[in-house]
Amino acid sequence: MDDQITALRARIDALNLELLERLSARAQVAEEIGRLQTAQGRSHYDPVREQAMLDALVAANHGPFSDATVKSLLKQVFQASMQLEEEQDKVQYLTSRRHHRADTVVWVGDVPIGGDHPAVLVAGPCAIESREQVEATAAHVASRGVRLFRGGAYKPRTDPYSFQGLGEEGLRLGRAACDAHGLKFVAELMDAADLPVFERSVDVIQIGARNMQNFRLLKAVGRSKLPVLLKRGLSATIEEWVMAAEYLLHEGNPNVILCERGIRTFERFTRNTLDVSAVALAKLETHLPVLVDVTHSGGRRDLLVPLTKAALAVGADGIMLEVHPNPAVALSDQKQQVDFEGFDAYLDATLFPETLSPGRTELYTER
Amino acid sequence: MDDQITALRARIDALNLELLERLSARAQVAEEIGRLQTAQGRSHYDPVREQAMLDALVAANHGPFSDATVKSLLKQVFQASMQLEEEQDKVQYLTSRRHHRADTVVWVGDVPIGGDHPAVLVAGPCAIESREQVEATAAHVASRGVRLFRGGAYKPRTDPYSFQGLGEEGLRLGRAACDAHGLKFVAELMDAADLPVFERSVDVIQIGARNMQNFRLLKAVGRSKLPVLLKRGLSATIEEWVMAAEYLLHEGNPNVILCERGIRTFERFTRNTLDVSAVALAKLETHLPVLVDVTHSGGRRDLLVPLTKAALAVGADGIMLEVHPNPAVALSDQKQQVDFEGFDAYLDATLFPETLSPGRTELYTER
Amino acid sequence: MDDQITALRARIDALNLELLERLSARAQVAEEIGRLQTAQGRSHYDPVREQAMLDALVAANHGPFSDATVKSLLKQVFQASMQLEEEQDKVQYLTSRRHHRADTVVWVGDVPIGGDHPAVLVAGPCAIESREQVEATAAHVASRGVRLFRGGAYKPRTDPYSFQGLGEEGLRLGRAACDAHGLKFVAELMDAADLPVFERSVDVIQIGARNMQNFRLLKAVGRSKLPVLLKRGLSATIEEWVMAAEYLLHEGNPNVILCERGIRTFERFTRNTLDVSAVALAKLETHLPVLVDVTHSGGRRDLLVPLTKAALAVGADGIMLEVHPNPAVALSDQKQQVDFEGFDAYLDATLFPETLSPGRTELYTER
Amino acid sequence: MDDQITALRARIDALNLELLERLSARAQVAEEIGRLQTAQGRSHYDPVREQAMLDALVAANHGPFSDATVKSLLKQVFQASMQLEEEQDKVQYLTSRRHHRADTVVWVGDVPIGGDHPAVLVAGPCAIESREQVEATAAHVASRGVRLFRGGAYKPRTDPYSFQGLGEEGLRLGRAACDAHGLKFVAELMDAADLPVFERSVDVIQIGARNMQNFRLLKAVGRSKLPVLLKRGLSATIEEWVMAAEYLLHEGNPNVILCERGIRTFERFTRNTLDVSAVALAKLETHLPVLVDVTHSGGRRDLLVPLTKAALAVGADGIMLEVHPNPAVALSDQKQQVDFEGFDAYLDATLFPETLSPGRTELYTER
Repeated sequence: MDDQITALRARIDALNLELLERLSARAQVAEEIGRLQTAQGRSHYDPVREQAMLDALVAANHGPFSDATVKSLLKQVFQASMQLEEEQDKVQYLTSRRHHRADTVVWVGDVPIGGDHPAVLVAGPCAIESREQVEATAAHVASRGVRLFRGGAYKPRTDPYSFQGLGEEGLRLGRAACDAHGLKFVAELMDAADLPVFERSVDVIQIGARNMQNFRLLKAVGRSKLPVLLKRGLSATIEEWVMAAEYLLHEGNPNVILCERGIRTFERFTRNTLDVSAVALAKLETHLPVLVDVTHSGGRRDLLVPLTKAALAVGADGIMLEVHPNPAVALSDQKQQVDFEGFDAYLDATLFPETLSPGRTELYTER
Repeated sequence: MDDQITALRARIDALNLELLERLSARAQVAEEIGRLQTAQGRSHYDPVREQAMLDALVAANHGPFSDATVKSLLKQVFQASMQLEEEQDKVQYLTSRRHHRADTVVWVGDVPIGGDHPAVLVAGPCAIESREQVEATAAHVASRGVRLFRGGAYKPRTDPYSFQGLGEEGLRLGRAACDAHGLKFVAELMDAADLPVFERSVDVIQIGARNMQNFRLLKAVGRSKLPVLLKRGLSATIEEWVMAAEYLLHEGNPNVILCERGIRTFERFTRNTLDVSAVALAKLETHLPVLVDVTHSGGRRDLLVPLTKAALAVGADGIMLEVHPNPAVALSDQKQQVDFEGFDAYLDATLFPETLSPGRTELYTER
Repeated sequence: MDDQITALRARIDALNLELLERLSARAQVAEEIGRLQTAQGRSHYDPVREQAMLDALVAANHGPFSDATVKSLLKQVFQASMQLEEEQDKVQYLTSRRHHRADTVVWVGDVPIGGDHPAVLVAGPCAIESREQVEATAAHVASRGVRLFRGGAYKPRTDPYSFQGLGEEGLRLGRAACDAHGLKFVAELMDAADLPVFERSVDVIQIGARNMQNFRLLKAVGRSKLPVLLKRGLSATIEEWVMAAEYLLHEGNPNVILCERGIRTFERFTRNTLDVSAVALAKLETHLPVLVDVTHSGGRRDLLVPLTKAALAVGADGIMLEVHPNPAVALSDQKQQVDFEGFDAYLDATLFPETLSPGRTELYTER
Repeated sequence: MDDQITALRARIDALNLELLERLSARAQVAEEIGRLQTAQGRSHYDPVREQAMLDALVAANHGPFSDATVKSLLKQVFQASMQLEEEQDKVQYLTSRRHHRADTVVWVGDVPIGGDHPAVLVAGPCAIESREQVEATAAHVASRGVRLFRGGAYKPRTDPYSFQGLGEEGLRLGRAACDAHGLKFVAELMDAADLPVFERSVDVIQIGARNMQNFRLLKAVGRSKLPVLLKRGLSATIEEWVMAAEYLLHEGNPNVILCERGIRTFERFTRNTLDVSAVALAKLETHLPVLVDVTHSGGRRDLLVPLTKAALAVGADGIMLEVHPNPAVALSDQKQQVDFEGFDAYLDATLFPETLSPGRTELYTER
């Protein structure tokens, strides 16, 4: 009986080679057609033609595969041809490491983010609330070696009656405090209409989690030259996040920094759940720098240090953290911002700003 | 021993009444302060004052509660006072049934949606692709009694290289087809900058799931007078969805229709998971009409009929459905749109457009 | 140029047919090998052989497909052959409608569940707490026409210090109350070791959500002849749920009733989220009856009526509901059980027990 | 007007102190009652008594709080008393750091897990398939310094027709291989009935994710003296996981090791999503050692190194990893096991087994 199987397997081997020969020939012809279609500016995928081919195959089918199986199988063959083209297209995704193998370094003025540069720390209050608050915070974090300052002037809030930020006045206060202390200013943009005032006021435009798939905003910011910090959506897959970055690069802005900020899960001990795999996969699949917002990821002060350690170990290019002179009276995020004393303790525990992340590049680029 | 317990319980009863007396007195004083603060335009919640009160209580505490428990307990008492005000505030949420007990009926021209009116059917292609496609679809659905036509001219797509809709040309084609067949036109708006052209072209502005928390867009559309169909976000809680509607009402637009379209779950047999509880709770908590998009909820043609039956049974005020002359060649959503024959079979199985939903109002308004 | 494309397409058409011919031949040979392997009691899938075939193909490949594409493509061809066998295997899944097209009716004594029989109502307390409580509840629900009584004697509790049920004494109390009022008794089994006492005491064995993938328990219950009510796990996919039922049928027990009880989601307004698509898909993919536990699905009394309507509309074969003489003092589920008055109001609103579900069978079996 | 507010605030301050006085008095009386009830073996919570108290309070209520608010508020006061007792109870949770501040070190023979001991590595195949496979793997990992060997003899499989493990024969093969190479043997137990044979064969009993809430299994294993490795359920909250461990400790087994293995999320690039916050919170809230299964967490070989780094950085006490002589032909988990060469590369990249985790204890015990 084993002899029988051996003989039949030899027949399979021969048929495999015959299949390969036809598949290769078919792929060559398909490529030729593709070139002609491209020259005519026509799309490669033609569902009517595909349907006609499938109909012809079904008409010719006499088993043992059912018609459904024949259709599914040849559809897979067609898709393989299309995948071949897609593979080639994928190399064209501007975010892809296949397109651009080396780490992108985004320079915010003279501060580099990404590549082999030391991990950066972006610190500041959730929202800019007053001149005193923003000035005190900027002074403190700058005195501790921080170079990048965060502070929201326009706040996306679930409830329309919550504090929504000081708006343009907030941008002015943030800019002044940053200028006074040699800091770069990062603030969230919610509407393309505000882009001109942001371009005059900030050093990095932040796109928030709720706007990750606000495609019109992405397109507008993609036409700016300012660095962009793109937060991952609350329930976005990694692919959706990377495609949002692709919108920015596609419009011409190469200075994109990804920022993981925790995903929505069933957990009630934390506000969100930090997804370190997303950091790893963003580094593997793209060449862009990746930060981690440890404040929103956990929503708990007692997790800031361990989550920072995990984020840096997995290869994050920097950390984002909320600092407020008096979190108990903050107009938002009271429970998760650290005060100045807490901030100093955090720096001691995490070794910022002396943190070096040797081997970060090695982890993801030497594949 | 039971006598002892009885005696101690009498002591508890007396203390309960003493607590009630002080709590009532305290609430009265707090109300008075609240009125004075409102008169001064000051916020009621003052975390510094609260901290001072808690500090004083801790200083006075001699057990048996720990300081932490005293703080937590009195914090709960403070919150009860705040809750009292919040309760009163809640009546002020414009979306709330406490504010507006009767069902809101949104009129799209002469077509009523909500209240005791028969459930409506919104049908049409995912995207407007050509004059022929939109014209044929409009003619067919109108011939079957449909009054509301959907068709996207601007399509939010995860991948920047996917078909993004015909834009303004799509709106023109849709408007023309609707005018030719006496249909009302529903189309998705992605950017406040396009609002003027939408106000000239459509009868209902749709806000898509990915823009549910695009607060700037909500504000702009809230200042329009056109009816708005607000889809629920992919992972939004019901409260977040209702708060998004609150943005619209708060800006002055009362013509808001909610639309459940399935939530993201772990399920792989369906694209999304229809959440009928969300329909029920939206009807219980708000006075707004609620539709269900059965095409996106399941992402499968074989679920359209059962999901429609479930949606109508739970009290939905209408259904949204994608219809395309030839789904196999559609530029999006190939797998889930129905063709004309499928559409006719759907109508037969669901009894549209003769569907009446008696008892719908009864289910949610007689509480 | 169009002529060129036409000519090339003719070449593609010819190659398609050549591919079909080889694929069919290959499938025939593979089938023959499969038969010989089955005769030898050997598994069909042989990864070493597959690897050798792929290696040979890669060695023979000269483009235009990359080696990776050739492997992926032929792997798809191999899988198509395997799928052909799997398709045939699938017909062998005992739960599958392909295997068994007609609805299975599970008889609990003289009470039929499934098929065209009217929807059933399973009512009773979360847990059996005392003789008085179980007797009063059984008397009340029986007086209203209910035939199936639920009541837990062994309660799975997250916290080891919570009330865990009365155990065997609970089974005795439940059995006595059911006998006194002509009811069938449904109770949850947590351990195969208790199976003998359950077989003496209950009419339907319930397997709870947390034990849905307790495969040893499934196997033991599969060897019993008692009807089984199998709850869906809190985050189980539909496929995982159906595979758990397959364990029961595979061991020889055909009397399986599926029970949807809501899935874990991000929603905070409800305890779980009723998944009506799961009911529809369980009816489409299997021939088993499907119930819906409306108490756990929503966890709110005000959702019992709308969720019941949705469940019956989507084709559920029955409803499960918790009733307690005085929910406020219940030892579990205080917030979601209804009292007798609430139960009567529920029956009036849902038209139980006169509910007929005409067209239920039609919805799912006439495909 | 500010004077008025100041005066009213003084009145509030006085009322606060009066409330504190009554609350303290009430708590003392309640404690006394509690002691008497404990002496009688009665439960502290008496819902009928609570209802009577609330009724009396509502009868006495004359505003400004509504009856509902009075009930809710005093219910909170009652709960605060109960919480006081619960707080005291919580100290009694055997898993809690409040109960047991120092890290528990679980000794598997002479191998310590937890505390300040170096992180351990548990390596071996997903399933034990043959004498040759288990022997080769044990030899290889032992030669590289590994002390703990994993290998499944009973495999929980979604599909009843999948390979379910070699059962007792698998345990024998695993034991022999471990004995030959000086390894400790870790294997999954699925049914309490198999406990005797496990106690003769293995060094650590693993409880799998699907059985995390199989409470009867937990109770049985809790009565064993063998160390237990408790995996977190696929969608379990951290609290549910810790409560499962509590079952084990409550039954008398102190040798419990927690194991995070990734949670179910919407992500399609990974099989599960590693939750590093869960590791951090398990270390904060309990005194038990915590491992991370990096194979199941990501389900991808290219994530093993970065996830290991993150896990160790966040304070994990060890790592679990699947190794197989030839993953391509494995009977399960083909895509995620590493071969010997991959294992050696993994060790080089992660610095196992020389890994020290200084500061681990510091991270979580010095609070």
